[in-house]
Amino acid sequence: MDKKWDAMNVIFNPRAVAVIGASDNPGKLGSHVMRSLTEGEYPGKIFPVNPGKDEILGIRTYPSLLKVPETVDLSIIVLPAEQVPKIITECKEKGVKGIVLITAGFKEIEDKRGEMLQREITELANQFGIKIIGPNTFGIVNLHLPLNASFTPEFSRVKKGGISFVSQSGGMSHLMAFLSMRNQIGMSKIIGLGNRCNVDFAEMVEYLSEDPQTKVIAMYLEGIDHPRRLVEVAKRIASKKPIVAYKVGRSHTSDSASQFHTGSLAGKHEIYEGAFRQAGILTVRSSEELLDAAKALAMSSLPAGKNVAVLSGQAGPGMAACDICETEGLSLPPFSAGTQKRVEELLPPLAIRTNPVDMGPAWYDSEAIKGIVDAVLEDPNIDAIILCIMFASANRAAVGTLSDLLLQRRTNKPVICCISSPTGIWDDEIELLEGSGIPNYPTPERAAKTLANLVIYKKLKGEYNE
Amino acid sequence: MDKKWDAMNVIFNPRAVAVIGASDNPGKLGSHVMRSLTEGEYPGKIFPVNPGKDEILGIRTYPSLLKVPETVDLSIIVLPAEQVPKIITECKEKGVKGIVLITAGFKEIEDKRGEMLQREITELANQFGIKIIGPNTFGIVNLHLPLNASFTPEFSRVKKGGISFVSQSGGMSHLMAFLSMRNQIGMSKIIGLGNRCNVDFAEMVEYLSEDPQTKVIAMYLEGIDHPRRLVEVAKRIASKKPIVAYKVGRSHTSDSASQFHTGSLAGKHEIYEGAFRQAGILTVRSSEELLDAAKALAMSSLPAGKNVAVLSGQAGPGMAACDICETEGLSLPPFSAGTQKRVEELLPPLAIRTNPVDMGPAWYDSEAIKGIVDAVLEDPNIDAIILCIMFASANRAAVGTLSDLLLQRRTNKPVICCISSPTGIWDDEIELLEGSGIPNYPTPERAAKTLANLVIYKKLKGEYNE
Repeated sequence: MDKKWDAMNVIFNPRAVAVIGASDNPGKLGSHVMRSLTEGEYPGKIFPVNPGKDEILGIRTYPSLLKVPETVDLSIIVLPAEQVPKIITECKEKGVKGIVLITAGFKEIEDKRGEMLQREITELANQFGIKIIGPNTFGIVNLHLPLNASFTPEFSRVKKGGISFVSQSGGMSHLMAFLSMRNQIGMSKIIGLGNRCNVDFAEMVEYLSEDPQTKVIAMYLEGIDHPRRLVEVAKRIASKKPIVAYKVGRSHTSDSASQFHTGSLAGKHEIYEGAFRQAGILTVRSSEELLDAAKALAMSSLPAGKNVAVLSGQAGPGMAACDICETEGLSLPPFSAGTQKRVEELLPPLAIRTNPVDMGPAWYDSEAIKGIVDAVLEDPNIDAIILCIMFASANRAAVGTLSDLLLQRRTNKPVICCISSPTGIWDDEIELLEGSGIPNYPTPERAAKTLANLVIYKKLKGEYNE
Repeated sequence: MDKKWDAMNVIFNPRAVAVIGASDNPGKLGSHVMRSLTEGEYPGKIFPVNPGKDEILGIRTYPSLLKVPETVDLSIIVLPAEQVPKIITECKEKGVKGIVLITAGFKEIEDKRGEMLQREITELANQFGIKIIGPNTFGIVNLHLPLNASFTPEFSRVKKGGISFVSQSGGMSHLMAFLSMRNQIGMSKIIGLGNRCNVDFAEMVEYLSEDPQTKVIAMYLEGIDHPRRLVEVAKRIASKKPIVAYKVGRSHTSDSASQFHTGSLAGKHEIYEGAFRQAGILTVRSSEELLDAAKALAMSSLPAGKNVAVLSGQAGPGMAACDICETEGLSLPPFSAGTQKRVEELLPPLAIRTNPVDMGPAWYDSEAIKGIVDAVLEDPNIDAIILCIMFASANRAAVGTLSDLLLQRRTNKPVICCISSPTGIWDDEIELLEGSGIPNYPTPERAAKTLANLVIYKKLKGEYNE
């Protein structure tokens, strides 16, 4: 690990944090930041800075950063924009290693003074060798430390996992966090880049590529000033660690809106998509698809090719999955003769026994179900399985039986599931499967679309030829 | 209401139900049906029929249907296929008005005897004037009575509401029910048509069109024998009560799989789509889109045209919504001069103040937010609003303020929301909004896509010209 990496890593893993502009007034962002750190159970030291207070949330508070008696690794700044240059200078004096600059009112405002102020702080930070996340950001979260250096304490409720999300929009970060929370998806870091004064996507992706707690890098972009730098970094990284990108600005209105929002022209969407593809970045078209793909990339093995078997407990959802497979360019080939024979031995003639297989008639016979899945898993014609099982009282035991088999499977072929049930039923089984690299999705269509994205990523890595 | 309608209505609203093949053995479907009725709190009388039992679940059990001492409106049959013709004859003798025939082993099996048996029971039922739902179905559910005449007791946990779902697949019905359950979406009836011996989509849609508890008819189809009949019924109905259809079989594999599954050739997908469009049926491409569209159609007013305003609490999600609006053919026109002036008075210059509006900078000023939404609601250039708000600790009060305004709004313009928050926050506000005709979606893209579907439905009704 080099010095550049260490400089970024200390921002996510500081031993002590100062909150400059800390507050106990719930109307102030400084109070939310204090709650994020404390409620998020940050294990390091917290030094609130506020000249008008002796303590905040029961924590000793200092009139200025320079009065803090110990070393500070990270400063979180929530003071008004015009005070920021002075504070950055104090950070340098104090030996602070990194800054999360939540304050808005820089490059993103119409007033030219915002842009000038941003140039000033960027020059200071570069001169001092201090990395700044922001300005105009909600902050950052490292669920592994844990460190919640943001103005949203609720980020701490997201499950710890392997997806790091780097975003140009605070709103999109909140959306992704809440979707993760509601669907038990684990995240590693949630990062709002804001106006990117001296930390842009390129630097962040480079850092995350060497971060052992990040398995997948998911990005949300509107438009960036230096796309070439990001593309060059991604080219080195994307075949080792998956990068998924969701870029808005396909439409005229959102493209021009983006210019106002983060001070960057979004630019032609097609150019981004082409460049991203060349760099090995998987691109997606919605927030849901971004999370679905990132989850699978963080969890599942990759398919060797595009040959899919659809196995379903009920024919309908299986057909829905088949439709998406075909529109997304996947194949549903016939099984090898051996597999076909085995499936026919295990299923009565009334069932659909070719690919897709309707396992419905075998629901009361767990050994038959296991036999089918086992045979298909080992079929050399098949690269991946989509498994759709809808709960019914009569098949309650099915998922338990299947998960036993899948947890012990001898192949590394991806299995993507849509196991659907009422709340409280099969939750443990699904958690077990996901813990063992088998992701579950709420609909057969999303399961199939996700598998298609795994195949695309495999192609982008250059490890797969038609 | 005519006799045909009454004949169907008694199936969904019977005063007494017999379960022929009732059981207390959890390995038998007859036990699940008994649990569905009792746990689902069916208010009428239940008569289990089983020659080997005196009582099941504490309910007096009869050796045959003919021994039941009272009138029976509906028989639910779970006996083996070969016994069914005899039972149907007994139903006639007993004066039973309708049958839910769960038993499989008819037209859907390879063995020709299945098809012959189905022809036999169809002839009997037609001769006796008894409507049969099935065979080869999980059953039916009427959440309003409530009546759970299915083998899945958990269907009773779905919230009561306005969507009736008619399906050719039991698996898809279970999926839709679980998605509804997990997202608090209200359903009216859940209907598995199975092999459709004498009740097909056409009859069911006709019945539901006059059912006051059904606001929207949602269908899942694989392929049907008499599409023309459905299209003709739909033509009469679809402009009064919305019909949404999700038909699988776009791909080669699912098309041929469908033939095995329900004994019907799925047929060219394009032909269906064209015929459905002419009949005024809204078609969708996934189970999630089906539920999203049905929910909005059950809840929201329709937009007069395709001119949309996107108002967002954070720019990113607003841009994501804009992208979908434009790819789906919606317009984001400039505001009228009056609205634009009002928005500029209420938002600082640093915000995006044209359509889409980034209301972020006004979060601390509920009156400003209210003023913006109010002005846009009344703008004659705008037919509908997409409202995206991501929770942050600092804007906790925002949704309450907005919902007060929206609940009292004077216009009938649709407002489609993506209000996203951690579990337990804003749940009540969202419920209030949905109760007042303002549907909420988990992502901005799904909110925008749903609004596009409302516009398409408005066009299909012929009430809207470009």
